[in-house]
Amino acid sequence: MTTLVLVSHPQLADSTSQQFLKESLPSTGVKWEHIEGQQALDVDQEQAQLRQADRIIFQFPLYWYAAPAGLKTWEDTVLTRTFVYGDHRYPLAGKELGIVVTTGMPQQAFQRGGAEGLTLDAALAPLAALAHRARMTWLPVFPIYQFGYLEEPEKLQLVIDYQRYLTQRQPDSLANRQDWFAQQLPGMVANLPTEQQATGKLIASVFDQNREQLDQLTDTLAMIKEQEDD
Amino acid sequence: MTTLVLVSHPQLADSTSQQFLKESLPSTGVKWEHIEGQQALDVDQEQAQLRQADRIIFQFPLYWYAAPAGLKTWEDTVLTRTFVYGDHRYPLAGKELGIVVTTGMPQQAFQRGGAEGLTLDAALAPLAALAHRARMTWLPVFPIYQFGYLEEPEKLQLVIDYQRYLTQRQPDSLANRQDWFAQQLPGMVANLPTEQQATGKLIASVFDQNREQLDQLTDTLAMIKEQEDD
Repeated sequence: MTTLVLVSHPQLADSTSQQFLKESLPSTGVKWEHIEGQQALDVDQEQAQLRQADRIIFQFPLYWYAAPAGLKTWEDTVLTRTFVYGDHRYPLAGKELGIVVTTGMPQQAFQRGGAEGLTLDAALAPLAALAHRARMTWLPVFPIYQFGYLEEPEKLQLVIDYQRYLTQRQPDSLANRQDWFAQQLPGMVANLPTEQQATGKLIASVFDQNREQLDQLTDTLAMIKEQEDD
Repeated sequence: MTTLVLVSHPQLADSTSQQFLKESLPSTGVKWEHIEGQQALDVDQEQAQLRQADRIIFQFPLYWYAAPAGLKTWEDTVLTRTFVYGDHRYPLAGKELGIVVTTGMPQQAFQRGGAEGLTLDAALAPLAALAHRARMTWLPVFPIYQFGYLEEPEKLQLVIDYQRYLTQRQPDSLANRQDWFAQQLPGMVANLPTEQQATGKLIASVFDQNREQLDQLTDTLAMIKEQEDD
C-alpha cells in the first residue's frame, strides 16, 4: 500500500508538531510532500501522485476551522473538475482520504456548547464532501489536540498511532492492528541496540503466543455462539 | 449603516455573476473590495475597514464546498487571533456577517441525498464558527444557484434581493422590508426617464397608501388579539 501525505503549513520549520510528525513517519510506503514548500504547483505531477496512492492524507493545523490557505490553493488548482469527475471517470474512486489535524484547543472545545461550538467533523465537512464527490472512502479523522502539552509517553503513543493511521489496513479493528504489529515487530527488534535484542525477541515471541491464544479464544467464542444460535 | 463587501474570485473579470452583482450594488453605504485584486494584503487597513463596517459580506463562488483560496488567505492573514479575540477585546462583536455564495449546482443538490450530499449551511459551518468566535451575528446565507440559467425577471428580482441583503435592517421582516422600500422609492422614481415619472410617482403613492392600510390592519389585528387574550 502507498500512502501520500500532503502537509499544509505556512511555516513548517517553526512547527514542533509537524517536525515531530515528520520524524515519526514510517520508513517505507509513504510519500511526503509539503504543499507550501513547492515553488509552483505542478498540476500534472500532483495528479499523477494522487493516482499512484492508495491512501491520501491531508495533514495541517486547523486555522479558522479549516485547513490553511495553502491546502485550499492546492485543492482549487490540482483538483480540477475534469480530473475528479469529468467524463464519468473517477480516478480517485476507492482511495482512502484521511485527515491529520492539529488544534491549539483541547478536545472538549469541539462540541456543542464547547468553546468552539462545533465538532471537528462539522468543521471538516467540506473535505468529507470532496471525498464523497470523488467517490473516495473517508477515514475517521486523526486529531492531535494541544501537541505542546503532551507528555513523553503520550508522544510515544502518538508515533505508533500516527504510523498506524498512515499504513495500517482499515478499519482499525483488533485483527488489523495485530496484523500491523506483527509486520512491524521484526523490524523494530532488529533496530534495537545489541544489549536489548534478547528482550526484544522475547517480547516478539510473547506477542506471537498471545496472538495464537487470541485466535483460539475467537474460535471457541464462535463455537459457543453457534450453539447458542441453534 | 455601512456594509463592507469582500469579494473573493480568482478571475473576477471572467465571472458574469460577479460582474452582475458589482453592477447591482446600491449607490451608497457600501464599500466593495476584490480580495485577489489587492497587490498585497495590508493587514492594518483591512482590519481598520472591518472596524468601520456594521455589516460584513463575504461574496464568492463555492469551490470544493468552501470559499476560494483567496478568502482563506485573507482570513489566515488579516484575522489574527490578537485582532479577533485577543486581550478579551472583540472589535467585531455585534457586527453582522453575511455570505453571498454562487453555486454551479441547483438548490436541490445541497441536501441529504442530493448530488452534493450536504447543505450549504453545513459547507459554510467554518465561517459560521468564525462569526461565533468573533461574537458577530450570522445572517442567513444568500445563495445564488446557477446564475447562468436565470431569466431576465429573476435577475431583476435578484438585484432587489441582493441590495436588501446588503443594506436592509435585519431580520428580513415585512416591517423592515417596507421601511427599506420606502427609503429607496423616491430615489428610484427620481432616476426614471421623464416620460415614466408620472407612473413612478403613482406607484410610490399607492405603495404609501398600502403601507398605511397595512398599519391599520396590524392595529386592528392587535386589538382583536387583545380581546381574545382577555
